Amino acid sequence: MQTVDGGVLAPKGFTVNTASCGINSPKGSRKDLVVIDAGGTASAAGVFTTNRVQAAPVVLSKDHLQTGMARAVVVNSGNANACNGEPGMADAREMAALVAEGLSVPASEILVASTGVIGRPLPMDVIREGIREALERQALGPDPDAAESIMTTDTVPKTCAVRCDLDSKSAVVGGIAKGAGMICPYMATMIGVVTTDAAIAPGALQAALRRAVGKSFNCITVDGDMSTNDTVFVLANGAAGNPEITRPEGDAYERFAEALEHVCTDLAKKIARDGEGATKLVEIRVRGARSDEDARTIGMSVANSALVKTAIYGHDPNWGRILCAVGYADAESDPDTIDLLLCGHQLTRDGQGLPLDEPTMRKALSASEIPVEIDLRLGDGAATVWTCDMSHEYVTVNAEYTT
Amino acid sequence: MQTVDGGVLAPKGFTVNTASCGINSPKGSRKDLVVIDAGGTASAAGVFTTNRVQAAPVVLSKDHLQTGMARAVVVNSGNANACNGEPGMADAREMAALVAEGLSVPASEILVASTGVIGRPLPMDVIREGIREALERQALGPDPDAAESIMTTDTVPKTCAVRCDLDSKSAVVGGIAKGAGMICPYMATMIGVVTTDAAIAPGALQAALRRAVGKSFNCITVDGDMSTNDTVFVLANGAAGNPEITRPEGDAYERFAEALEHVCTDLAKKIARDGEGATKLVEIRVRGARSDEDARTIGMSVANSALVKTAIYGHDPNWGRILCAVGYADAESDPDTIDLLLCGHQLTRDGQGLPLDEPTMRKALSASEIPVEIDLRLGDGAATVWTCDMSHEYVTVNAEYTT
Repeated sequence: MQTVDGGVLAPKGFTVNTASCGINSPKGSRKDLVVIDAGGTASAAGVFTTNRVQAAPVVLSKDHLQTGMARAVVVNSGNANACNGEPGMADAREMAALVAEGLSVPASEILVASTGVIGRPLPMDVIREGIREALERQALGPDPDAAESIMTTDTVPKTCAVRCDLDSKSAVVGGIAKGAGMICPYMATMIGVVTTDAAIAPGALQAALRRAVGKSFNCITVDGDMSTNDTVFVLANGAAGNPEITRPEGDAYERFAEALEHVCTDLAKKIARDGEGATKLVEIRVRGARSDEDARTIGMSVANSALVKTAIYGHDPNWGRILCAVGYADAESDPDTIDLLLCGHQLTRDGQGLPLDEPTMRKALSASEIPVEIDLRLGDGAATVWTCDMSHEYVTVNAEYTT
Repeated sequence: MQTVDGGVLAPKGFTVNTASCGINSPKGSRKDLVVIDAGGTASAAGVFTTNRVQAAPVVLSKDHLQTGMARAVVVNSGNANACNGEPGMADAREMAALVAEGLSVPASEILVASTGVIGRPLPMDVIREGIREALERQALGPDPDAAESIMTTDTVPKTCAVRCDLDSKSAVVGGIAKGAGMICPYMATMIGVVTTDAAIAPGALQAALRRAVGKSFNCITVDGDMSTNDTVFVLANGAAGNPEITRPEGDAYERFAEALEHVCTDLAKKIARDGEGATKLVEIRVRGARSDEDARTIGMSVANSALVKTAIYGHDPNWGRILCAVGYADAESDPDTIDLLLCGHQLTRDGQGLPLDEPTMRKALSASEIPVEIDLRLGDGAATVWTCDMSHEYVTVNAEYTT
């Protein structure tokens, strides 16, 4: 596996075009719509938010994915098209229909994602014009700013691509994501789009995506708020020419799944690092749990603790907050067997504090990446999750925005 | 039921004495230890944190409560005596023994609670002296500063007392609590001590306490972090002379339970309002849920949302965040039936936004108490929970403290 440039454009056969519609900012001021075209009907898979409140594009895309095939993805930022009732569904359907018309395919081959303010009608006039604009520009060639066009409060575009070998052919997996900013700032909405030129059947693709998301996007948290719009799509157009991977097993499948997991993990960590107001990426590695699921539950409990996140922001080695969050997680732990390392320094043995050199720890905590290692010493379960610290800027971003 | 002054000293027969030991601040600078004496062996009950990591005084007090009887409670602030292993247990036992010796009762009649830094040995030399000092002063009469002596990052002492009629005798229920500051600031540790002169058997007292805590202290959250030390005690010394309430049923029991719930709810709301950095008390009333438990789960999901809490701090009427937190709660809801009122203004009907007058809403949100009403329209379940907003000061208190 080898890292390459180009994000979603790195795999063969994909084109990407963007528009500055003016959905929630003046027209032309920033890209807010993108069409990612597989160049032909592709195997497609998706995973979505498990929130009971689901945005219209989530409902629509789930329906369109039933065939396991899709041609293109259209994503807008600036408006989540959530809590908009039947008019919202009609708007999502129209977005799909407009892209489908431009590409001369059935509307069911178009996947839709939206991110932005909740509960405001989509401004369909500017979106219609934007989709037309994006499709016209497609004739002129690709536009590389896909990652930028789906940003909301993100501060940097997030892309990743890797090359892997599948049965003597080389295939590429590329992705873009937008993060863990809130939207406008109504919502933390995570959207990821992954493209690949690997030939892989829909069932195997869905299995690989589910596995990759389980170890990447489902292992990050910025503020514990799960969005109505969270969506990850993958389109596989087969342009690499490898023998089609038909089932979720075997060498080629494993290699593809690894590449997909690498891209998803890279994008997930970029989202965590760019969480609203974040100054640090925090990596929490839990081992010795009764199960991998228990390890993830405990890791997420620590990652979601406002006390842990503010302490890390303040370079404060208060390990008691970490043990406390382990203890209230809904997973088995024994306070008398926990070993904790912070920035490589062991702070507890058997759940009791060891002598702590405060200046050394404060210096270690000033780094931009903070490793937290928790060994429960109960079993073989392990998981790694990522979060960011919680700063004054987090409160500013989320409180001082004027709607 | 009628409100009276005096907190834990309002019921007959109780004495309260404090000391300035210097546990985590210079000796004499602030009260950090209190002994609350029932004047004789009293019915006693307690509820404790469900965190797997439990402080030594929690483990000890659970053991001492097995008889259902106790004479006195000793509480210190400045040190949580948590994650201290066997030496921590020995220290908790010594605290009980010292108070027991002074009162000439068995150590098993003394309940202990601690709040403060985690993972530091208790400074037993100053605590020994403080307990001696408090017990000597007891001979001189009561000291009314109980609530102050258990404060950590609390900004105001929290007390409440009410009088109720039980079978023609008048009884008083009084309480103190410390909140939802972190400790030093290692922990959010909630401690409450309730006294009453009602005559009530231990089993009925435990039942009434469990019911009251379920609707009060268990319905507040500041940051979602559950402490290793959370403790609520109640001591009932029978000095009111009412016929003893022997079982959790009947008129007198119901009146006592109501009074106890009133005191606990009042203290719980005071804790929420005084949450670290808080500028507002937020009251979330959920109705129309499938069950009371579902209503509480949904209320707590909204109350713990950093996005909801920062929005309220910023006077931002972004109801999408509230619906989002309803949707990801682990309880049944239907996005298409939710009616939401914020500060008395209906913002959604059937889960869809209604026209919103922004200046009116911003003005309403500048109040110091913010009611949020959520009607799920699915059943008869209801619950009310309380929280505070999340401000820059919250981050400051928890990040910028120098250990």
